[in-house]
Amino acid sequence: MNTRIEHDLLGDLAVPADAWYGIQTQRALDNFAITGVPISHFPALVRALVQVKSAAAWANRELGVLSAHKADAIMAACDEIDAGHLHDQFVVDLIQGGAGTSTNMNANEVIANLALEKLGHGKGEYQHLHPNDDVNRSQSTNDAYPTAVCLAVQFAAEPLEQAIRSLIISLEQKGQEFAHVVKMGRTQLQDAVPMTLGQEFEAFSVNLAEDIDRLHEAGRLLCEVNLGGTAIGTGINAPAGYQAMAVRRLAEISGKPVVSASNLMEASSDMGAFVMFSGILKRFAIKLGKMCNDLRLLSSGPRTGLGEISLPPMQPGSSIMPGKVNPVIPEAVNQTAYQVIAADLAVTLAAEAGQLQLNAMEPMIVYNLLNSIKMLTAACTMLENRCIKGIRANEEQCARHLDNSIGIVTALVPHIGYSNSTRIASVALNTGATVRELVLAEGLLPEVQLDAILSPHAMLAPLVAVS
Amino acid sequence: MNTRIEHDLLGDLAVPADAWYGIQTQRALDNFAITGVPISHFPALVRALVQVKSAAAWANRELGVLSAHKADAIMAACDEIDAGHLHDQFVVDLIQGGAGTSTNMNANEVIANLALEKLGHGKGEYQHLHPNDDVNRSQSTNDAYPTAVCLAVQFAAEPLEQAIRSLIISLEQKGQEFAHVVKMGRTQLQDAVPMTLGQEFEAFSVNLAEDIDRLHEAGRLLCEVNLGGTAIGTGINAPAGYQAMAVRRLAEISGKPVVSASNLMEASSDMGAFVMFSGILKRFAIKLGKMCNDLRLLSSGPRTGLGEISLPPMQPGSSIMPGKVNPVIPEAVNQTAYQVIAADLAVTLAAEAGQLQLNAMEPMIVYNLLNSIKMLTAACTMLENRCIKGIRANEEQCARHLDNSIGIVTALVPHIGYSNSTRIASVALNTGATVRELVLAEGLLPEVQLDAILSPHAMLAPLVAVS
Amino acid sequence: MNTRIEHDLLGDLAVPADAWYGIQTQRALDNFAITGVPISHFPALVRALVQVKSAAAWANRELGVLSAHKADAIMAACDEIDAGHLHDQFVVDLIQGGAGTSTNMNANEVIANLALEKLGHGKGEYQHLHPNDDVNRSQSTNDAYPTAVCLAVQFAAEPLEQAIRSLIISLEQKGQEFAHVVKMGRTQLQDAVPMTLGQEFEAFSVNLAEDIDRLHEAGRLLCEVNLGGTAIGTGINAPAGYQAMAVRRLAEISGKPVVSASNLMEASSDMGAFVMFSGILKRFAIKLGKMCNDLRLLSSGPRTGLGEISLPPMQPGSSIMPGKVNPVIPEAVNQTAYQVIAADLAVTLAAEAGQLQLNAMEPMIVYNLLNSIKMLTAACTMLENRCIKGIRANEEQCARHLDNSIGIVTALVPHIGYSNSTRIASVALNTGATVRELVLAEGLLPEVQLDAILSPHAMLAPLVAVS
Amino acid sequence: MNTRIEHDLLGDLAVPADAWYGIQTQRALDNFAITGVPISHFPALVRALVQVKSAAAWANRELGVLSAHKADAIMAACDEIDAGHLHDQFVVDLIQGGAGTSTNMNANEVIANLALEKLGHGKGEYQHLHPNDDVNRSQSTNDAYPTAVCLAVQFAAEPLEQAIRSLIISLEQKGQEFAHVVKMGRTQLQDAVPMTLGQEFEAFSVNLAEDIDRLHEAGRLLCEVNLGGTAIGTGINAPAGYQAMAVRRLAEISGKPVVSASNLMEASSDMGAFVMFSGILKRFAIKLGKMCNDLRLLSSGPRTGLGEISLPPMQPGSSIMPGKVNPVIPEAVNQTAYQVIAADLAVTLAAEAGQLQLNAMEPMIVYNLLNSIKMLTAACTMLENRCIKGIRANEEQCARHLDNSIGIVTALVPHIGYSNSTRIASVALNTGATVRELVLAEGLLPEVQLDAILSPHAMLAPLVAVS
Repeated sequence: MNTRIEHDLLGDLAVPADAWYGIQTQRALDNFAITGVPISHFPALVRALVQVKSAAAWANRELGVLSAHKADAIMAACDEIDAGHLHDQFVVDLIQGGAGTSTNMNANEVIANLALEKLGHGKGEYQHLHPNDDVNRSQSTNDAYPTAVCLAVQFAAEPLEQAIRSLIISLEQKGQEFAHVVKMGRTQLQDAVPMTLGQEFEAFSVNLAEDIDRLHEAGRLLCEVNLGGTAIGTGINAPAGYQAMAVRRLAEISGKPVVSASNLMEASSDMGAFVMFSGILKRFAIKLGKMCNDLRLLSSGPRTGLGEISLPPMQPGSSIMPGKVNPVIPEAVNQTAYQVIAADLAVTLAAEAGQLQLNAMEPMIVYNLLNSIKMLTAACTMLENRCIKGIRANEEQCARHLDNSIGIVTALVPHIGYSNSTRIASVALNTGATVRELVLAEGLLPEVQLDAILSPHAMLAPLVAVS
Repeated sequence: MNTRIEHDLLGDLAVPADAWYGIQTQRALDNFAITGVPISHFPALVRALVQVKSAAAWANRELGVLSAHKADAIMAACDEIDAGHLHDQFVVDLIQGGAGTSTNMNANEVIANLALEKLGHGKGEYQHLHPNDDVNRSQSTNDAYPTAVCLAVQFAAEPLEQAIRSLIISLEQKGQEFAHVVKMGRTQLQDAVPMTLGQEFEAFSVNLAEDIDRLHEAGRLLCEVNLGGTAIGTGINAPAGYQAMAVRRLAEISGKPVVSASNLMEASSDMGAFVMFSGILKRFAIKLGKMCNDLRLLSSGPRTGLGEISLPPMQPGSSIMPGKVNPVIPEAVNQTAYQVIAADLAVTLAAEAGQLQLNAMEPMIVYNLLNSIKMLTAACTMLENRCIKGIRANEEQCARHLDNSIGIVTALVPHIGYSNSTRIASVALNTGATVRELVLAEGLLPEVQLDAILSPHAMLAPLVAVS
Repeated sequence: MNTRIEHDLLGDLAVPADAWYGIQTQRALDNFAITGVPISHFPALVRALVQVKSAAAWANRELGVLSAHKADAIMAACDEIDAGHLHDQFVVDLIQGGAGTSTNMNANEVIANLALEKLGHGKGEYQHLHPNDDVNRSQSTNDAYPTAVCLAVQFAAEPLEQAIRSLIISLEQKGQEFAHVVKMGRTQLQDAVPMTLGQEFEAFSVNLAEDIDRLHEAGRLLCEVNLGGTAIGTGINAPAGYQAMAVRRLAEISGKPVVSASNLMEASSDMGAFVMFSGILKRFAIKLGKMCNDLRLLSSGPRTGLGEISLPPMQPGSSIMPGKVNPVIPEAVNQTAYQVIAADLAVTLAAEAGQLQLNAMEPMIVYNLLNSIKMLTAACTMLENRCIKGIRANEEQCARHLDNSIGIVTALVPHIGYSNSTRIASVALNTGATVRELVLAEGLLPEVQLDAILSPHAMLAPLVAVS
Repeated sequence: MNTRIEHDLLGDLAVPADAWYGIQTQRALDNFAITGVPISHFPALVRALVQVKSAAAWANRELGVLSAHKADAIMAACDEIDAGHLHDQFVVDLIQGGAGTSTNMNANEVIANLALEKLGHGKGEYQHLHPNDDVNRSQSTNDAYPTAVCLAVQFAAEPLEQAIRSLIISLEQKGQEFAHVVKMGRTQLQDAVPMTLGQEFEAFSVNLAEDIDRLHEAGRLLCEVNLGGTAIGTGINAPAGYQAMAVRRLAEISGKPVVSASNLMEASSDMGAFVMFSGILKRFAIKLGKMCNDLRLLSSGPRTGLGEISLPPMQPGSSIMPGKVNPVIPEAVNQTAYQVIAADLAVTLAAEAGQLQLNAMEPMIVYNLLNSIKMLTAACTMLENRCIKGIRANEEQCARHLDNSIGIVTALVPHIGYSNSTRIASVALNTGATVRELVLAEGLLPEVQLDAILSPHAMLAPLVAVS
């Protein structure tokens, strides 16, 4: 392999001659091989990194600390990478020591070499344009990297939000489709009172919809960035005026309403916004998981379970049991939800491990956040298209459950009292008689009134009915 | 022991004659003895329960489904308990099966018996006023209990917020007190660049202050209650108009802006607001923990550690090592933080375990939320009064660290470049020479300019200084 | 309140005159009020502490560093407390800073004052017998406390083991009682192949029984103690020969085969044995939780669920739905299991937070371990006596499920092949016809052979049957 | 792309013509795209799968339920894959619904097609040799897959064990190298008593070494397999004698002492052995994390931290601070440890979610176990080679700490008492005087005796010294 020699604090090292990355990226490649997942696995992160670098170059040029010649080359390089080029040059493993320095230097080096080429120089000719002195000008990893991460999470959350919205619509549609299917509700897995299958799916939909707002709220916290704080938030080595200018420029480039954090020192070490975002992802995962548990319960059977709905068959269910079809899609979503819950613990552990002016564990926070977002996005889409849309109601089974139920006795409590109702329920359970038969036999209510009370309409819409 | 006999679905059971609670509470006492922590351990929960009962009674009276005679007695009983009486009658263990039914019945029974006495009847004479038919009128555990929990968490969070606010003020004061103490900042436990000790404490203060807003936001989600949904959110057995009336009344009684959830079925089984609140408590715990880790690091020594601050001694530190004083208060806070993080997992597990129209694990969610709030409140107060207020700066040590440091070379980068600076730093580390000496020896900068760059003022306030 | 004045490193402080504890306990009481749970909540810990103190006194006497006069008084005091006296004097909150120093000093002070009284002196007259110089002789908190904890966990685990054994026996008995009840097995909540209800309960029993062995293995790790290592494992201030003598004596007193850890410095900071024990408790909790999930599923209904078993009713299930009975006991066990899983996270967090020669978070490890053991013990006993023993099989429902099932087609695969079987299953599902009818209609197998294959005997006992 | 058409329960589907996998694998590829990590990412799992298939084929041949012609072809195909061929055909995402059915069918299909080719047939000509009827003969996913996983974890653990052993040796060597470096020990980050740096590294070594035994113990639990239990543990469709024969054969092929689980129904749904193994990995991660925290503390500085050791520089530490070198390797290990702790939670969640006769979440258990093992293996090797081996002691700093310390007063307690020692320590702290000076000034001990007591030899080796 052809190589070129580069130099840093620790000495010389060979880098592949055709690599846009440089010596510090190479050292990181040699040092870290934990997950096997490189930065490029998350294009949102690559894009966010170069947008930060472009904004910094712009501010540096405006403030006269970087020549227009260099700044323009840097910005052109950033644009090109933002558009999707050279992502494969972002090679460092996402779990890395150094609090993101390797990721930041990977960006600095790729941008520098691409800019050098634009200026007619060869890769590695840093005397013309330097990864640290020029690309990283007025920055530290400790402000450029967290700022990029704040953007990356927001970028990555966009397709997640779209996937959730689409899933919600499909759930709503099922809610409408099943609006006429009356069934028994269950609390604590015991027969409760009547409801419709449509209400069940509508509740799923409403439940998930709330988290769109939560994601937006958490996203707003990510808009407070520490760019300009440099090493520890004192802004050392950044020229006066730089902070405001760079942040404003970043808002333009990214299209996100980023603003300066009010206290840059606090913002340098604080992982609170990431903890918050991870917490929302966990909350959403819990909800997805609960819904999928319900789907699996409601579709249990086909003959010995609840059997109120049928999920669309997606693959044969067994290597030994012919004809078996399993709820494979909800099962995969449940597992995804567990991974996200576990990832939230990883974020928690990393956030608590911050020390003094920095959190050295931020790389794994980034990894877990972006990974959770990616997995949840895939899970929502899979769930919608390969499960929800194809669900069918087993109306006969729902009706059978309703007819057999004792739970309807609840509707009689305001009319015959809790004690009478309790007794009727007990006799029904022990004898197999229906509630209706027993109430009539005891003469507790006239037949006409009883039938009115027990009509599905009355039991389902009491909130609008006159008592 | 004198007893009276009460009766329910399962038959007769003896209850202590002088107990205000009744048969269902007694069964719960017999059934559950897991934590040993009774409802009364959290007065906020007792108060919230009776406020819900009072609001329901009021609405029932207004709608004519409960006589004024009974409703007034119930409301008077609720007022009395709200004021602090009979809390010791709320005896059921907080971890209980039944999704809160035992807690709800404990409230129903105590209120019924107290109301009976107010009406001149004896305890247990439920033919005159019944725990289910009257006190629980138009309610189910499944709406009354979660509604009460939403209030209870808000009530409990008030002293927590006060404790946090007070802690923040003490941190701010230390920030001002230490504003003149220049020291070295550290990233990744390695010497970085200068800052002040005041900035360090100010950052703590700002960091915690953000969570007051987060608690408020999470509190707002708790204001959407499902009262009126009864068993599963269809509102079965609640008279028309009841829901709006009861919720409005509850807002008046509680002083909290509670409103009806938009979808009562969703609200009946959703634990999202509790997950959210727990997540904020966890976030705050992480921040407290990180701060206490820092306090322990900064006060490490007295002779072989960082030693930049001294914590007030609160107790002898060792049974064997004389004179040893340990950072016992931050250590206790760290442990509290870990308990809260673990409690968040408990809440997560419980929330994910909801099934169909209800979450049967809600009692443990309540237990963990209230317990975390209580512990965090105590921890904040302890930390403020027994640690923060008494912290002293070791100014000599801070100055010594600054003088010895190589990290100040960072300030030279814009003037002599990253490569020159790197070389100077290396030589300094290996030879013991100072950065200043080496720069002058090499003639890289004139002495006057060098001293200006390296002055604390210049290094600490670059954001306002002209470059 | 009458008080006496005591003195320590920090100065004078008033202690209640009638308290057996002293100044350092008083300071700890003032400092720590996080959980509200005092040491005395766990008698196993009190007993273990005084056993360690007694063993140390004995070794100190034998080695001549403590007079027989003092040592005998100390040992007599320890015996008395071991027998159950003065436990209420162990008052410090279990979550405390100081790595257990307050707990250790609480023990030292109570023992000292009780011994002083035995010698005819008054409380607080430490010139005659001193909590540090005499009771704590040759010890540090850092060896005496972890050693006591190792014992305490073992003591506390004894009733847990008994409760598990008893639960296992009841499950086995149900396994025998239900051995004749043939039913459908389910995988992924979908109908699978036949089994007996007896096998289901037998599997529960076997599953839990394995954890008795795991508890023993984990208990053995707790037998390696660091007594004699004093402050950091170098044994400073312990006389030669003390370590072996004290440990041997402790084995005699405690009845547990404690031995010296091979490396005392490692043992001083290592929390591995506690992490291990907590992990086993978590494993057991997972199993309990899974079993209770199953019990709730199998008893779901009574009319719209699986309904294969009935749990004994323990309390009315609803404040609104008459006649409803819920699986309250398994629900409470599920919640206990979640608490234990969360406690394992607390232990994990604390264990990871050890620094250098000690783990300052050990008090919360102790708290969580002992709390989990106590809760699991209560949960097992509750589950056995209030649920398992009263479970009834719903044989008709089991038979109905078996008769309706398509899953029995699996048994035909070796005879008609996977493809044919799959087709038969599909037709059965779509038409409602039985497997038997379809196979005969297609002439795939003679009736006699078919019936032999589909007999419960053949499907249930293939491992002993000749193919 | 050329395709061939295959058929299953759900109908026809095109499969790439040159793929060795078949229709069910293709459906799984279409269904699941959550992690992006295919089975082939863990060669240990591929190898284990084909070993199970080979053992089954052998037993089927011996029992006459599979022709020698087919069985031999299947076994030859398995051998070839075991040797490393066609791993890229194991394409299904590790997080999948179906409880491993897709993984099992991926194996069945690749083996079938490879065997078909060996027999001179084309891919997909299953009439000659069928993935279900022949390769999966006498098996279910529910026994073949968990059995393979038990083996896979053991295979994967082998390089982990080697990496740990190697790391331990390097730590031991550092222990010897630093045996002469006397330093101050610290408890709760406060100066305690003297020790050697060698003891510190020796303790690390001993601490990790214990977990080799724990891994072995946990590995033994994985040797109890449920092969032969088929669908739910009743062994349906497996011929008599098959179970024992297949398991014995598997022991031969795998070289692992696998045996039949005593209760196959219990073994089918139990995840206990995986929970146990994961718990051990977590325990090891906690220890690794604690050690790396210590390494970062001890190397903190270079000028303003503890600075007792220097880690080898692996890369420049900052994009802005020249000359800064960070502890990047321990930081990466810390993050790996957090990932493993989080993965243990994922395993816990999945294990608790088992229902009735199976745990549908097993695929994610497998994924997390294998991923944790892989990451820990890489972390140990990285830590050893890129950090431990290059650590240097800063002997001057260690000596300076020792000389300045007040903690040595502890050694005087047996000679001048706890109260005197406490007073001396206080004065030393407040005045800056040394302990030695103060003791002599007060005439508490003769100089000769004092110096003997305070000699490092006496303070470090009390356990062997005569008191």
